[in-house]
Amino acid sequence: MIAERFPRIRVVLSRTSHPGNIGSAARAMKTMGLSTLVLVSPANFPDKMARVMSSGAFDILDRARVCGSLEEALEGAALAVAFTARQRDLSHEPADIRDLACEALDVAAGQDVALVFGNETAGLTNEEVMLCNRLAHIPAEASYSSLNLAAAVQVVAYEFRRAALALMQAGGDACDASAGTIERAPMDDVERFYEHLEASILRSGFLDPKQPRRLMERMRRLFGRAGLEREELNILRGMLRAWDEGGKGLKGRTDGS
Amino acid sequence: MIAERFPRIRVVLSRTSHPGNIGSAARAMKTMGLSTLVLVSPANFPDKMARVMSSGAFDILDRARVCGSLEEALEGAALAVAFTARQRDLSHEPADIRDLACEALDVAAGQDVALVFGNETAGLTNEEVMLCNRLAHIPAEASYSSLNLAAAVQVVAYEFRRAALALMQAGGDACDASAGTIERAPMDDVERFYEHLEASILRSGFLDPKQPRRLMERMRRLFGRAGLEREELNILRGMLRAWDEGGKGLKGRTDGS
Repeated sequence: MIAERFPRIRVVLSRTSHPGNIGSAARAMKTMGLSTLVLVSPANFPDKMARVMSSGAFDILDRARVCGSLEEALEGAALAVAFTARQRDLSHEPADIRDLACEALDVAAGQDVALVFGNETAGLTNEEVMLCNRLAHIPAEASYSSLNLAAAVQVVAYEFRRAALALMQAGGDACDASAGTIERAPMDDVERFYEHLEASILRSGFLDPKQPRRLMERMRRLFGRAGLEREELNILRGMLRAWDEGGKGLKGRTDGS
Repeated sequence: MIAERFPRIRVVLSRTSHPGNIGSAARAMKTMGLSTLVLVSPANFPDKMARVMSSGAFDILDRARVCGSLEEALEGAALAVAFTARQRDLSHEPADIRDLACEALDVAAGQDVALVFGNETAGLTNEEVMLCNRLAHIPAEASYSSLNLAAAVQVVAYEFRRAALALMQAGGDACDASAGTIERAPMDDVERFYEHLEASILRSGFLDPKQPRRLMERMRRLFGRAGLEREELNILRGMLRAWDEGGKGLKGRTDGS
């Protein structure tokens, strides 16, 4: 089970300042059986300290992919989870990481999952969180909530391992009975949907570019929480096209059926 | 709930080589609300690297108690859990850390709990494990099972926090319905029982000092797993005294009743 699903789970570290933390994160991943590491604009990588701190997890470092943007790092993923310490205004509702690990493993039965961790000091930017479709916190003390980056990776990887072990014990049954039958929309397709939606409501006059009032952020939150399926996305895109064409597309379809 | 029980939970780091790991462990504890740190013969402490790596968890470092032996560090604890990566021959059966966190919180309602972590490279010695009454593993990859010390503290502290939060949600009900009604035997009393038992079976001839065959280790495993209550310990000590006296004590009691 672990062997099947874990390769579909990538750990994404965005703008990591200290290469030692990349090494420590690789070690944390390896202890729990995760092996796919993606780095977005790391300050220093490859780096000797990364190797030292990895405690021999060289295979993960050697195969780590370096990207220039989070969009690139998320390509092909159907579920991207943003890990943050702070509660954010109007952002996605945070999921419990234990439930989320179970859900993500269901997705990983057939599609790719990204676990996204931000910079050591600043965490993930709002823009980065918005590129993900889920938000999760590790429950921590309100007055001292910032885990070390590699420690956060360790806890999350640990929860994924526990979820995978529970899955194995259940004889390979998924956490959710509907798993495998649902195909989630890939992240890049969801991004194109958001672009389409924004263009569409701009054109329709609903979105006032002078007063956007975080409308797209609200939409991202809504659809991110829902976890769009591929088929649903196709339907939504079809709807947008129909509106864009001012009813012509719908008319055409009605005529043809 | 956390405020009540967490002060009764101490993290014990035995023979830590790198002071930076002590600092990282303090940070990991603080994020989860644990604050009592005990150090057994640390290589360097206090130390600047410990402060740097603690990321501001100075309160924990400043109040850390330094002991010369694990026995001293465990004084007054009713439950001591040894964390190890390796499976050990004939040692205590490892508990699941999730179940164990729940059980330990029950104990912490009225008595002290120690979470014991060994040296970074060598882990806990067999003698150290034997001084504890429970053994626990963090489930990890068999081929790469050694978590960084602070990462292990982070995962364990996280599980304790989750257990405490679950307890709060349950309205303060303990994990186990019998919690609070059972008083566990303090570790030092249990140690004195083992000494008494060993002396007693040596005297009786059952234990051959030339061929001890790990008999005391087996006894520690048995009673450790059972989790001796104070009252049970009193009974056992009474039994030993009676045997030591060759039936005289028993006779006297029978006469007196």
